[in-house]
Amino acid sequence: MNRELIGKRIKGIRRKLNQKKIDCLIVTKPANVTYTTGFMGDDSWAIITERVVCLVTDSRYTEQAQKECIGCGIIQRKDSMAEAVGKLLKKLKSVRMVAVEKSTSVAAFEALKKHVKLRLKTTSDIIESVRRIKDNSEIAAIKAAASITARALRQIRRYMKTGVTESELAGRLDFEIRKLGATNSFETIVAFGPNASRPHHQPSERRLRKADTVLIDVGAKYKGYCSDITRSFAVGKPTRLFERAYDAVEQAQTAAIKMIKAGAKIQQVDAAARDVISNFRLPVYGHGTGHGFGLEIHEMPFLKAESKGKLKAGEVLTIEPGVYLPGKLGVRIEDDVLVTESGCKILTRNCPHTLKLSN
Amino acid sequence: MNRELIGKRIKGIRRKLNQKKIDCLIVTKPANVTYTTGFMGDDSWAIITERVVCLVTDSRYTEQAQKECIGCGIIQRKDSMAEAVGKLLKKLKSVRMVAVEKSTSVAAFEALKKHVKLRLKTTSDIIESVRRIKDNSEIAAIKAAASITARALRQIRRYMKTGVTESELAGRLDFEIRKLGATNSFETIVAFGPNASRPHHQPSERRLRKADTVLIDVGAKYKGYCSDITRSFAVGKPTRLFERAYDAVEQAQTAAIKMIKAGAKIQQVDAAARDVISNFRLPVYGHGTGHGFGLEIHEMPFLKAESKGKLKAGEVLTIEPGVYLPGKLGVRIEDDVLVTESGCKILTRNCPHTLKLSN
Repeated sequence: MNRELIGKRIKGIRRKLNQKKIDCLIVTKPANVTYTTGFMGDDSWAIITERVVCLVTDSRYTEQAQKECIGCGIIQRKDSMAEAVGKLLKKLKSVRMVAVEKSTSVAAFEALKKHVKLRLKTTSDIIESVRRIKDNSEIAAIKAAASITARALRQIRRYMKTGVTESELAGRLDFEIRKLGATNSFETIVAFGPNASRPHHQPSERRLRKADTVLIDVGAKYKGYCSDITRSFAVGKPTRLFERAYDAVEQAQTAAIKMIKAGAKIQQVDAAARDVISNFRLPVYGHGTGHGFGLEIHEMPFLKAESKGKLKAGEVLTIEPGVYLPGKLGVRIEDDVLVTESGCKILTRNCPHTLKLSN
Repeated sequence: MNRELIGKRIKGIRRKLNQKKIDCLIVTKPANVTYTTGFMGDDSWAIITERVVCLVTDSRYTEQAQKECIGCGIIQRKDSMAEAVGKLLKKLKSVRMVAVEKSTSVAAFEALKKHVKLRLKTTSDIIESVRRIKDNSEIAAIKAAASITARALRQIRRYMKTGVTESELAGRLDFEIRKLGATNSFETIVAFGPNASRPHHQPSERRLRKADTVLIDVGAKYKGYCSDITRSFAVGKPTRLFERAYDAVEQAQTAAIKMIKAGAKIQQVDAAARDVISNFRLPVYGHGTGHGFGLEIHEMPFLKAESKGKLKAGEVLTIEPGVYLPGKLGVRIEDDVLVTESGCKILTRNCPHTLKLSN
């Protein structure tokens, strides 16, 4: 990221603020603070007006902020956050209407109301809607994160032996990601056998058996950016039920990916995947077909039946249909794609759908 | 945890609700939901009235809730959370004054205001103040978590060799914790040399050198409960500056721990540690001397100069003074203690302050 890229982001945000007649936005969501200032630490807010961008932080983070922030002022507060912001806004003469992000806690909003002596309202999705379209530095970081995830998955194949626990395999994966200079985008899911029928299963002490199936959902986070990959496979000879579910999910994913391009209706992409599953006479998954991601693991757009709107070039999405049969099995396949004018680019090509086991 | 223990918790919370004339509390903070229902998943709220305790969740978590919840109803919502809560409250006849936790987002609070047709206010620290005093099941889980952390630290001594990166060592630690059936309480800090002067340093690709010092701050989370241990040491022969800083920190910690017992003034415990550091003519740390912990890594009480109040038997605290000399070194020692009537019990005794390296 450089000064030019961050300048573009701020310009896009100021345009939205103008439309909404907001003179000053108080940015409290950590990912939005990072997006607008470059700062990667915690407990810090950003203030954006027509003329000013600055980070309000405290002594724990001043050194880090000086290193990371690009083209913004840094204010080291001694008072509470709300007091510091109140004092700062007093100095900004032409500010009348102030807005705070709705993800802010009620406690922080109440404190702000006490210290900010201007018109104060709440707003949402201003920065999120700009973040939807990824710039080149973001796409590069996401690609790198996806490559690290793919590599970590390759590295742990040798540990996928009968007897290993879900928890140990998850730990191995996280460690490989760590060794590759990244952290986790979210808590790694490793589910054996029927455990995979719970989309949010937490790795347990369950050991891998000969006739098991495996579901792994994992993502590395690199330079602040996420990735998100799911793979499903059978340890031994797959059952006919597993094969049918797997075919359904893979075809559902292909159907959705084929629909993706700038201008495609989100509902139609979602429906394309669901239709395949129901044509296989299998139960249609309760979660979305996919979601945007970037600095956060779940970002706009959300690919759901009720989602309105169209895809735009520069959006980065996961496509993750699944089949869940409680007590029996779970299959999910998830890849990451970049929406382009003419279609999409799969960012997880180097991670084969079929993970071969070591024995 | 059993029905009797959770019954006691609810009784304590109802007493506070009565005092504040609240008929119904909407619990949104995940740790508070766990504390009052046993449920460990996400995206679920609890509702507590004089007669009812119930969890409002969705289909992703129903199976998990049925397994984990103790003595509470489970409602599987189909509507939005705010709608579902609104409908539920309509059915509860004697409820007039409803309160929501202040940690709730403004967005969720605004949605609730739309759907709850009763008097709705915000409140804070009701459940947190009950959670301050740990019951036996909580103390057992915290002890187990601390033992796992101590064991993981012992396990990784063989990897503490010159050339290892901060990031790899952090990854090894996390993996050991995983293998012992736990997860992390917070992001592990491993800092070599001058990197340790930043209390919130993130593990980097910096390699361990012969003349380095090491700071590790790590905690395992077991059965939902945290632990928190920091150790500092020199790889080779320590410098005189490091030795002085280390002595100061260790003596500061001892001074604070000596003051701890039920009824001790929190400010005095905090001051006891700071006084030792300043008597050594070293800079006094900017963070607190310690903090409560349990389901969350930071809980009441907070041991700071401005904290009023006294310690109570059954509180579990960390004591973590430090010395930070930017560009030179950082030393912090952190142990976990249980406050008793006559003093305190150190829960991290089995984790020696001096971690010997393998070469």
